Amino acid sequence: MNMYDIILKKREGGKLSKEEIEYFITEYTDGDIPDYQASALLMAIVLKGLSEEEIFDLTKAMKKSGDTIDLSAIDGIKVDKHSTGGVGDSTTMIVVPLAGACGVKVAKMSGRGLGFTGGTVDKLESIPGFHTAMQPKAFFKQVNEVGISVISQTAHVAPADKKLYALRDVTATVESLGLISSSIMSKKLASGSDAILLDVKCGSGALMKTREDARLLAETMCKIGASDGKKTVAALTDMSQPLGLAVGNSCEVIEAIETLKGRGPKDLEELAIHLAGIMIYIGGKAKDENEGMAMAKAALEDGSGLEMFRKLVKAQGGNPDITENYKLLPQPWYILEIKADRDGYISRIDAMGIGLASQHAGAGRAKKEDSIDLSAGIVLAKKVGDKVQKGDIMARVFGNTASKVDTAKELAEESFSISAEKCEPPKLIKEIIGL
Amino acid sequence: MNMYDIILKKREGGKLSKEEIEYFITEYTDGDIPDYQASALLMAIVLKGLSEEEIFDLTKAMKKSGDTIDLSAIDGIKVDKHSTGGVGDSTTMIVVPLAGACGVKVAKMSGRGLGFTGGTVDKLESIPGFHTAMQPKAFFKQVNEVGISVISQTAHVAPADKKLYALRDVTATVESLGLISSSIMSKKLASGSDAILLDVKCGSGALMKTREDARLLAETMCKIGASDGKKTVAALTDMSQPLGLAVGNSCEVIEAIETLKGRGPKDLEELAIHLAGIMIYIGGKAKDENEGMAMAKAALEDGSGLEMFRKLVKAQGGNPDITENYKLLPQPWYILEIKADRDGYISRIDAMGIGLASQHAGAGRAKKEDSIDLSAGIVLAKKVGDKVQKGDIMARVFGNTASKVDTAKELAEESFSISAEKCEPPKLIKEIIGL
Repeated sequence: MNMYDIILKKREGGKLSKEEIEYFITEYTDGDIPDYQASALLMAIVLKGLSEEEIFDLTKAMKKSGDTIDLSAIDGIKVDKHSTGGVGDSTTMIVVPLAGACGVKVAKMSGRGLGFTGGTVDKLESIPGFHTAMQPKAFFKQVNEVGISVISQTAHVAPADKKLYALRDVTATVESLGLISSSIMSKKLASGSDAILLDVKCGSGALMKTREDARLLAETMCKIGASDGKKTVAALTDMSQPLGLAVGNSCEVIEAIETLKGRGPKDLEELAIHLAGIMIYIGGKAKDENEGMAMAKAALEDGSGLEMFRKLVKAQGGNPDITENYKLLPQPWYILEIKADRDGYISRIDAMGIGLASQHAGAGRAKKEDSIDLSAGIVLAKKVGDKVQKGDIMARVFGNTASKVDTAKELAEESFSISAEKCEPPKLIKEIIGL
Repeated sequence: MNMYDIILKKREGGKLSKEEIEYFITEYTDGDIPDYQASALLMAIVLKGLSEEEIFDLTKAMKKSGDTIDLSAIDGIKVDKHSTGGVGDSTTMIVVPLAGACGVKVAKMSGRGLGFTGGTVDKLESIPGFHTAMQPKAFFKQVNEVGISVISQTAHVAPADKKLYALRDVTATVESLGLISSSIMSKKLASGSDAILLDVKCGSGALMKTREDARLLAETMCKIGASDGKKTVAALTDMSQPLGLAVGNSCEVIEAIETLKGRGPKDLEELAIHLAGIMIYIGGKAKDENEGMAMAKAALEDGSGLEMFRKLVKAQGGNPDITENYKLLPQPWYILEIKADRDGYISRIDAMGIGLASQHAGAGRAKKEDSIDLSAGIVLAKKVGDKVQKGDIMARVFGNTASKVDTAKELAEESFSISAEKCEPPKLIKEIIGL
């Protein structure tokens, strides 16, 4: 077997065998296949596609390229949750405590933010003392005792995906259904949970811009999960405008706590209860999705979700008092207001634009090595469909570096459109696949 | 301008601008664009194609990447000749002396063989003392005084093409009309002749397997030549079976000499006279192709072509007496015969199979760094359409290493097919384009 023939086969639209895919992944991870051959194959894959079987084989080969986590030391059904990434997506910090409060075990590994997309690990680290690096034994113990844990992904999970992703990122080979779905699922399958809930975003602030592409990705990932014996459910949700109101790190922590107190933005609460309901159901704690959602709603209303969040913070070294005193979180020096320049209705708040503005304010990274300002971000005061009068505050931009906040404000301003006619807000939860 | 956006544009089927192509070629040649980005772009080009304008721009950018030879120190119209490569193609050694004998100036740079394809430089170097490395001044002087010269290409001509070709060779991105035509023509245009004759081979022993692909390549190269103000003519010729009878290095030199003496294989003589005739015409020494061919035939019959070959050998340090004493050329130790196993007609002599057999006998290289056995090769005794009786010799395989000659014999045997019915030989010269 040799790499040249594998590239040639895919270039001609052929179907790679399990052995060819395993050869590529193993040898590339070991450094025995050079980047220039890998990138030629990746481009051929982007342009010629992968069959379902090839996607399954690729996912499993990448999963096997590193450690696979054995969660059998944790009692009960373990449920994982993954978002394909968006702007202002603080749902993990709400959904995981709600599901945990209803008895679901969640042993979750999360990522960091890159570009205009935030990451749960960064957000949680804005809580003073909170650590996300944990040894397996301590991780299992926490999930057994507390019920939930959210840690950062180790380098040993799917290293092939890590190496390939870095190459795809610089060779314009990211946009491929097969490559995206296998990348996500190789990490999820290696993480060892019994069931997986995927939140597949679609719209300007997501990898998938159209509902059709998002649905195809969701369906493919559900099939990959099933092919490995994991119950996998996907929610297709809107990312044309930011989710909730807060975009950043510490501001999203505050928003998540407010939501757990029943005072959060309605869209975020709706999504969190729906996703938590599904997790409770596929985690075996409810007889159907509706009962799961009712349980999640109750956990929000009776404060047990908030209490679970406090336990999570405490177990991972953070100060649980932040839920009562937001001043304990990083505070920004500069706050600028964005005001409506006319009367009308908000017709657009471009999610990618707001994400980029937040990144420029200091909340995100252009490169993996960049440091971030945990206090920086944007909090919207209005959402699509809201009525505004000239001079009304539409958003606040903040951070610790004046010049960055200035640039961010300009970018954020351009992301708003106001129309004279009344507009409907986009439907948040578009469909659920695989339930 | 950045390479990521250029890859993305081509991936999406876009048309690259002159500036983008120049940026890619300049930065890649300078080592500022990594191989893994170049190979991703090459694969996108193979699968999405290049427009005519992109091909022109790519050719010119590669031509400009190194030295362009100024032949103005040579009087008269300089005519170049290039074959796209085949098996047993000794025409340059016949055509160039014939054209030279008729007053055409030929300042030709040739390549070495790779894989199953031979190279004129290797063949000429089987003449003891013959050197193909020459300084420009001596090269110009020889063409002015003798009329012709055949030297090896310097590293300074189209270095971008050299670097890109090496990458294409290992990333399955060779087969692309735009990449092949720009690769050939960038070197031809940099070599400075006024008119160019291309011999575009088609069939199993050629890069282009079908006549349609070969015609498209020929037409494209003629257009590239015209876009740079060079009269460019292409002959489409058969390479389904080897050309002539000899395949190797010293054996092809002998065959070329025999042909110049009027005793060569008829197909080779026919092609050589036709190609020389075109060169004489586009070199301004005949009023049309037919007059050119008549002049070439006369130069063959009156011995002036052979005399010009002897002058070429002498001018480049070789012993001209080889034309009368073939024992002065490298001799093989082992000679094996391939015999017909039944009565019938030769229906197939697979050119690529014979080329590979010759390579295995020692006449060719698998990698550029390999050394070759100048005495090794194969001489056919029969061609497609010939009648054979069981036991007739169809070919002789020879070389200096017994095991290699054994392997070569097996490969060569598989390249022959004998049918009970009479077969027609393939048409050698299929069409002439651009005249």
